[in-house]
Amino acid sequence: MTWYGFAGKLLRVNLTNGEFKVEELDRNELRKYMGCVGYAAKVLYQEMPGGIDPLAPEAKVVLATGPVTGTLCPSGGSYEVCYKSPLTGTWNQARSGGSFGPKLKYSGFDFVVIEGKAAEPVYIYIHNGQVEIKSAKHLWGLNIEETTDALIRELDDPEVSVAAIGQAGENGVLYAALINDRGRAAGRGGIGAVFGSKNLKAVVVNGRGGIKVARPKEFASAIEKAEQWLRNYPFASIPTLGTIGLVSLLNSLGMLPTKNFQTAHFGGADRISGEYLNRKYQIKRRACYSCTFACGRYTSVSSGKFATPPMEGPEYETVDMLGAICGVDDLEAVIKANYLCNVYGLDTISTGMSIGFAMECYEKGLLTDKETEGMVLRWGDGEVMVKLVERIAQKEGIGAFLAQGVKRMAEHLGPAAEEIAVHVKGLEVPAHEPRSESKVLAIQYAVSPRGACHMHPNWASTWDFGQLDCGMKEFGLPWPPAAPQDESLQKGVVYRYITLQGEISEILGACIFYSWGTEGSCITPQLYAEIVSALTGWDVTAAELMLAAERSWNLKRCFNAREGFTRKDDRLPKRFSQAIPDGPSAGAKVVGLDAMLDGYYEAMGWDKSTGLPTPEKLRELDLEFAIKL
Amino acid sequence: MTWYGFAGKLLRVNLTNGEFKVEELDRNELRKYMGCVGYAAKVLYQEMPGGIDPLAPEAKVVLATGPVTGTLCPSGGSYEVCYKSPLTGTWNQARSGGSFGPKLKYSGFDFVVIEGKAAEPVYIYIHNGQVEIKSAKHLWGLNIEETTDALIRELDDPEVSVAAIGQAGENGVLYAALINDRGRAAGRGGIGAVFGSKNLKAVVVNGRGGIKVARPKEFASAIEKAEQWLRNYPFASIPTLGTIGLVSLLNSLGMLPTKNFQTAHFGGADRISGEYLNRKYQIKRRACYSCTFACGRYTSVSSGKFATPPMEGPEYETVDMLGAICGVDDLEAVIKANYLCNVYGLDTISTGMSIGFAMECYEKGLLTDKETEGMVLRWGDGEVMVKLVERIAQKEGIGAFLAQGVKRMAEHLGPAAEEIAVHVKGLEVPAHEPRSESKVLAIQYAVSPRGACHMHPNWASTWDFGQLDCGMKEFGLPWPPAAPQDESLQKGVVYRYITLQGEISEILGACIFYSWGTEGSCITPQLYAEIVSALTGWDVTAAELMLAAERSWNLKRCFNAREGFTRKDDRLPKRFSQAIPDGPSAGAKVVGLDAMLDGYYEAMGWDKSTGLPTPEKLRELDLEFAIKL
Repeated sequence: MTWYGFAGKLLRVNLTNGEFKVEELDRNELRKYMGCVGYAAKVLYQEMPGGIDPLAPEAKVVLATGPVTGTLCPSGGSYEVCYKSPLTGTWNQARSGGSFGPKLKYSGFDFVVIEGKAAEPVYIYIHNGQVEIKSAKHLWGLNIEETTDALIRELDDPEVSVAAIGQAGENGVLYAALINDRGRAAGRGGIGAVFGSKNLKAVVVNGRGGIKVARPKEFASAIEKAEQWLRNYPFASIPTLGTIGLVSLLNSLGMLPTKNFQTAHFGGADRISGEYLNRKYQIKRRACYSCTFACGRYTSVSSGKFATPPMEGPEYETVDMLGAICGVDDLEAVIKANYLCNVYGLDTISTGMSIGFAMECYEKGLLTDKETEGMVLRWGDGEVMVKLVERIAQKEGIGAFLAQGVKRMAEHLGPAAEEIAVHVKGLEVPAHEPRSESKVLAIQYAVSPRGACHMHPNWASTWDFGQLDCGMKEFGLPWPPAAPQDESLQKGVVYRYITLQGEISEILGACIFYSWGTEGSCITPQLYAEIVSALTGWDVTAAELMLAAERSWNLKRCFNAREGFTRKDDRLPKRFSQAIPDGPSAGAKVVGLDAMLDGYYEAMGWDKSTGLPTPEKLRELDLEFAIKL
Repeated sequence: MTWYGFAGKLLRVNLTNGEFKVEELDRNELRKYMGCVGYAAKVLYQEMPGGIDPLAPEAKVVLATGPVTGTLCPSGGSYEVCYKSPLTGTWNQARSGGSFGPKLKYSGFDFVVIEGKAAEPVYIYIHNGQVEIKSAKHLWGLNIEETTDALIRELDDPEVSVAAIGQAGENGVLYAALINDRGRAAGRGGIGAVFGSKNLKAVVVNGRGGIKVARPKEFASAIEKAEQWLRNYPFASIPTLGTIGLVSLLNSLGMLPTKNFQTAHFGGADRISGEYLNRKYQIKRRACYSCTFACGRYTSVSSGKFATPPMEGPEYETVDMLGAICGVDDLEAVIKANYLCNVYGLDTISTGMSIGFAMECYEKGLLTDKETEGMVLRWGDGEVMVKLVERIAQKEGIGAFLAQGVKRMAEHLGPAAEEIAVHVKGLEVPAHEPRSESKVLAIQYAVSPRGACHMHPNWASTWDFGQLDCGMKEFGLPWPPAAPQDESLQKGVVYRYITLQGEISEILGACIFYSWGTEGSCITPQLYAEIVSALTGWDVTAAELMLAAERSWNLKRCFNAREGFTRKDDRLPKRFSQAIPDGPSAGAKVVGLDAMLDGYYEAMGWDKSTGLPTPEKLRELDLEFAIKL
């Protein structure tokens, strides 16, 4: 059977016994979920019962690509790592770009399921359909840059894509990341620690097989249309300055999280801005496979105490977290810390928030010089911030305390610390302020399956509420919607739409950036349907994509439900019910979360008391197997 | 004879006797200067002897278009007003965009020379080759918006382009502007006062004649190439955010002039940034005729004390001048002041600098409540700033004092005020800091024919010294040049190149923005040569364009020499030899201006003691008629 748009195979690797097998995918079953996160949700829901320790051998990990991965579709460079997070105990999906996803698919596999635990350090080498589990004893203890270099040398192939963990993952830092292509992070939730727990140092891929396109002419013309539309992309700073271009914009609006979210306006913002980076430290731009935006930036600091070799980043999230969140306005310190996070393998968001939280605890006397080993955790001290990054990765002294993340630190320090702990379900809140202009973000932080998340649901599209419909008009939905302040059911309908419109990117293996806009300026569900239809030969409609997205979203909710998460956990940190004290958005706070949740659950067809999908909803989605919860 | 690329005619209007005549242009003579500013320099040099009062009937004004004006060439929307400035006593050329230039050309005229003085207010109406001098008695006293509305009504043609003066020009404010298309300013040097002195309220144009292209296919492919190259334009914020996008960038580099140039870093920059404007006040973008960048922005403030109807702007210069230069971080106040400048007809740069200077004088006790009519001129007071704009336009009270500009105010206030007066040759310095990263700007302020000027020479291209060659490599010039800090002759060579490369835009009637970049990312002299050759049918080389540019540049120097300007006047304000006190560029100052001037004069073939073109140079340029000076 010829597969179009997919490799058609799933690779299952058992690290305990060193065996692997290749499974043919079922075409109809795949279409039900489309691929990537959608199909991974089905695999993990069905294969990994509730209550498993995320760091135990029984825990499974899915590396997942989607139909657009590796194609000419803009943003064809994505893959996702799906797993249960050791940081939160919830479902987690960590997306990354670069070329790892495309090469995995060219090697013949849409998915890799990793199970068990190796007795000694190993890496998995996948190349043109061949699979080897090889010793990584000589790599253990190396950082990611060194590991990548060593693997390229020993495999004698400069074209391999390496996804590896560094010391942070080996040491079990609960927010350790997996880094591929040297500087692209599957960052959030601690996948690095999961790899470490399995003695898995890296997955290395290469492949030269292509991806077959069912209707090439139609596909080319849909891609051409996408590229035309994207020329009108509303978030122009992303292609021009990279994501860091958001620093100036968000600060001007009072939306730049600062000092552990104490405020949302940072006096030193212009010193950590995209404009400044571009001028002073940028070496070149870098695009993920097939991307027309090229938001990636390579930087280095040429001399001084923060000197670094060239490295990808820092991204916007990183700059806010290791910069403004810690009160640091020295971009060289941020670039150094970004470099260290990338080579040690740390999620820059949780790292920055853990440090910012510790700085506020220190300010308030909840952490003292005794616990900090005499380090003075003063706001804005770039040297201390950089030092802490190193100690976290090594899990030494105060670093071992910070390596647990904000939730566990706060529990240890007691109620006064819990008051100022800014996380949802244990995931540190990223660099987007839910109290000011993007107030609609509040509900999205509350309901995201992985905790406070900047990617799922697709909050950014709601940012321009009233301007960007994200294709909503195509669906005949009421537009423009009620004002963001309006807590009506209509808002629930809009939230539902945006959740699912964003989830389409996740199940197709596309970058979420491409779904921000409106007809003519982004890739709407309708246009994705054209692309996927031409690619796969299935006649997929936008409505079918939305349905598959809804399936994925509901399955992840069911996964979490089985772990004990219900409406009671859809809460926000206390800080967000306190007004922003100063700056352009002074006075703003989150109010009425419960009413918003009511509207959202109702629109989703979820039970309002539990916040969980009803049996009727699951039956409607053809997910009977998930009803037992 | 068929004219390609030009209308082929000059219109001469004498306001004293109400007569006009149409003169055929000489093709060879025109090619020598190419057009626009180049040809206008010849006209004014030859027809307007030295020593004429710029506000006397003998003073002449040239409205000038170039070969690319009105064509498909990107930036085909420019025209220039050339005249002797009442503010500086020097040559002046004030460029503006919109559709006035194209319509003038479509009406059959490349140039309009305005002479004499009408006995009573008039306007000139040019339409499809017809010319009428009509009474403007009913328009005198109206602002520019009202004048434009009234003219469209009475001429019963919504398609006319109106260039008019407001109350500021009528009242003789020395930096009154001419505004066309409601919001596009020929701003600098007081052309509004010159119009006022002639009782000339407006020039109104419309035309439906086309412009013939000699080799259409070749022209289309050169334009296509230009559009391709411009997609890589290095100053990406200009197309995306408009010129105001520079606020964040320049502030982050310590290059944002603040508080009358006391410093170069403004704490309130993010409140007056392009990002903030875009988010809060922008209604739409607006392009000049044929422009692919569309840097213009329409804005309004919907309510409150600074409420305004929709209006074009504010541009970067305006925002810095009426914002940071006055310490004002309230963008609504800036938008209001921009609106008032546009309807009263004021140059926003000189207006802002005059107010900023007055604020510093007030701070230092050089201006007191007695002179200010009790107004407290405190840094950052947006209400006072807006109030002063109104009073300047009306020339009332303290406004009459400010309406003279910084140089005259300082002379009146004495030496302590002259110490802090930031102008060159009487023209207030615009929003670009010559002490910090763009130190090369210093010499350009010093030598520009119209005084401290942000347009001529083409300083911005030197900003990226070492990155952007502006086509210099095409000329076989040494590249990269010596570092900006190096005061060698080589630098003189580079300055000369950049001066002339920028002047090509001026003689072709193109926007200077298009010349910032390098081969593949801007319109280089070589590419302009391709465009002009295909358009006119002349086989023009880049070297010929450079030669014509040099002719223009030298003639303007001769014009000024006749008015008494020599090397001794190529000076900078005292402030620039004082170090910037704080911010990212703390400590920077201008040093070694004399050595830079030596290098520049030598490279230009000018006499080092007088700073004037030598007879040999003028002979080489075929400008014997200018040797007499």
